[in-house]
Amino acid sequence: MIVEIISVGTEILLGNIVNTNAAYLAEKCAALGLSCYYQTVVGDNEKRLTETMKLARGRADILILSGGLGPTQDDLTKETAAKLFGRKLVRDPHTRERIQAYFKKRGKRVTDNNWKQALVPEGAIVLDNDNGTAPGLIMEVNQKTIILLPGPPGELKPLFEGKVYPYLQAKTDKVIRSQVVKICGVGESMVESMIKDMIDVQKNPTIATYAKTGEVHVRVTAEADSEKHALKLIKPVVNELKNRFQENIYTTNEEVTLEQSCVDLLLANELTISTMESCTGGMVAARLINVPGVSEVFKAGYVTYSNKAKRKVLGVKQSTLKKYTAVSAKVAEEMAQGVSLLTKADVTLSVTGIAGPDGGTEEKPVGLVYIGCSVKGRTKVMEYHFDGSRMKIRESTVVAALTLLRQCVLEYFSEITFGKGKNKKN
Amino acid sequence: MIVEIISVGTEILLGNIVNTNAAYLAEKCAALGLSCYYQTVVGDNEKRLTETMKLARGRADILILSGGLGPTQDDLTKETAAKLFGRKLVRDPHTRERIQAYFKKRGKRVTDNNWKQALVPEGAIVLDNDNGTAPGLIMEVNQKTIILLPGPPGELKPLFEGKVYPYLQAKTDKVIRSQVVKICGVGESMVESMIKDMIDVQKNPTIATYAKTGEVHVRVTAEADSEKHALKLIKPVVNELKNRFQENIYTTNEEVTLEQSCVDLLLANELTISTMESCTGGMVAARLINVPGVSEVFKAGYVTYSNKAKRKVLGVKQSTLKKYTAVSAKVAEEMAQGVSLLTKADVTLSVTGIAGPDGGTEEKPVGLVYIGCSVKGRTKVMEYHFDGSRMKIRESTVVAALTLLRQCVLEYFSEITFGKGKNKKN
Repeated sequence: MIVEIISVGTEILLGNIVNTNAAYLAEKCAALGLSCYYQTVVGDNEKRLTETMKLARGRADILILSGGLGPTQDDLTKETAAKLFGRKLVRDPHTRERIQAYFKKRGKRVTDNNWKQALVPEGAIVLDNDNGTAPGLIMEVNQKTIILLPGPPGELKPLFEGKVYPYLQAKTDKVIRSQVVKICGVGESMVESMIKDMIDVQKNPTIATYAKTGEVHVRVTAEADSEKHALKLIKPVVNELKNRFQENIYTTNEEVTLEQSCVDLLLANELTISTMESCTGGMVAARLINVPGVSEVFKAGYVTYSNKAKRKVLGVKQSTLKKYTAVSAKVAEEMAQGVSLLTKADVTLSVTGIAGPDGGTEEKPVGLVYIGCSVKGRTKVMEYHFDGSRMKIRESTVVAALTLLRQCVLEYFSEITFGKGKNKKN
Repeated sequence: MIVEIISVGTEILLGNIVNTNAAYLAEKCAALGLSCYYQTVVGDNEKRLTETMKLARGRADILILSGGLGPTQDDLTKETAAKLFGRKLVRDPHTRERIQAYFKKRGKRVTDNNWKQALVPEGAIVLDNDNGTAPGLIMEVNQKTIILLPGPPGELKPLFEGKVYPYLQAKTDKVIRSQVVKICGVGESMVESMIKDMIDVQKNPTIATYAKTGEVHVRVTAEADSEKHALKLIKPVVNELKNRFQENIYTTNEEVTLEQSCVDLLLANELTISTMESCTGGMVAARLINVPGVSEVFKAGYVTYSNKAKRKVLGVKQSTLKKYTAVSAKVAEEMAQGVSLLTKADVTLSVTGIAGPDGGTEEKPVGLVYIGCSVKGRTKVMEYHFDGSRMKIRESTVVAALTLLRQCVLEYFSEITFGKGKNKKN
């Protein structure tokens, strides 16, 4: 079945608000195995809204509209939909009562315009809204389903989750399942060329790549008559991806972020971490602290943007700063080792770089970054060259730091396992 | 002139990402005085993308498309647009050189699929992309303008700001000027009720409010026959806003962010700053370090997520942690004072709170945050209650911290000026 999402509201067209409802609805519909080929945003305008619905009716089975159900004159989604689909608006006594109760509870009198929200298209399924006064509505007309939802996300989401989702689930006949494979340390075009042969022959399951900052997510989606069959289709494809990308895959779990995978790795190996950042100014620490419960592994973070702070806080040597300058492999190394001494953390990450827009030289251009990672005293420093704005360079640096952290911890343990471990650098 | 915004990407249709590009482009187009009646999202599918462009071409003068310019097989926006508007794709040597340089700088070889990005529609204006490999493109065909931009916001925004905005500005026949008034420390609905009378009678200039995390931007836009006349229309409205919001307005400059205004305030008063963060884990420091040249004022930042780190790094007393718990006004105070002693900064900010999703109690619920700010030894601590996810609570906290920083510095100097200053708390 095909669904189309229509968001109604001049405030979206003017860019006053970001259309998070469409993303929410799209994700839910995808999880239901509904195909969605278009999302449209249209203003509170009868003519244009009618045109939009006509078009959507011609290419989809289910129309989900959000917004424009409120009490004001601008709100005309329900009126327009009822007119197009040939339904009269009738009084709904149940909704009238709920509106009355809603206002009473807040010690307010119902203003006249609010009664408009108790008019519903004849024959519509009325979805009680516990978080506002406009109910959700479902019309079934000539094999088409039209679902109207209020615009505020705090009303739309509970209505969808509690009422629309089960309604749609009962309607769908096939099962769609998908699995994500999250890759770090390999660029999007490299990922693409490494799986071009797989993409070329894909049909069911399908394979799609999604570029995130510094990461690539590959989504494998299968359609089948049962969940078991769908998962059976997905499995060999995911295994092949694992085979090709090995340790660059940090998770195949939808919910797990890169920072979560780092924290999990530290937890699993009973390691603590501290960070020391210059150009990222706390972003690496902040990213790790996205993970609830990180306090078990995170010891302390330091932001030493100036040279003076690097010396004073961390004991980076004046002579090193002078000889190599602050953005150098040597300073990254001393930072990683300094924070290790200072906090006794098992693992430390250090970052120093030139985020720009100024401060670059021919020899040390904007975008040059050194990241150091020390695992139980073994320090590795990598040099990077990033492009873009100050913010983009810093964001790329954060992902590179987490990727290096994973790599160093994994290397450390694999070398220990193979007996060439601890003494190698001593 | 009428513009239509088309976002291309299966990841938007699947709800994998929120369409922030459309909101950004919509706001910018509104500021340019362009009318926008529809936004559409369509997948990476030639047939449907063609249909969407045909429809848009019939109802708008300018089409802005984002996404689908990358190197992968999925990316077909440029190819589809060129075909529909009858333009051949030709090699652009300049872009080839840029791609080569982009990869060389990173010490990488250009993979074959990347060369696709150096093909451009014949006669198109090529917009160099400093943050990626796909250039922006403008085609002018039969009175219609088709603008193609890469999907990653870090590439799209600088391209639009630097190249598309001036291009569109030159195209419009009337003069539209707008000025933003950026407000912190006042909620959106409060801002709206404080200027409801102004909004009710608005016509030219128009007044629109934009809610950002923890901030509200009010945009005043005037249309006139000359720039001088437009600015003359804007001025009294902005003055009235200044009159109503006073020091809650941190800037009326488009380019200035909240963190920039904080850094400017510190620079102007020759003050240095250090930070100490628990639940925000470095986000406050990272936000300040967004500002180039911040090293003149930023001394050091500490991330002490655990109680142990709060004690060890900053000297918060064990007894205080025990008596008041880590999330308390007293601990925020000791943190602000501790970092002040430790780093000798003139101003310090401290943050401690419960970002969730776990760790809340009836007495100290998720979302409870204390922020301390010390200016030359005078410490103020504020209590906040934020709603939403762990990330949303942390983001709200960062803005509240910067808002408090401004307020405390301004208060300090206004009291000194009026002679009730330094001794008040001693």
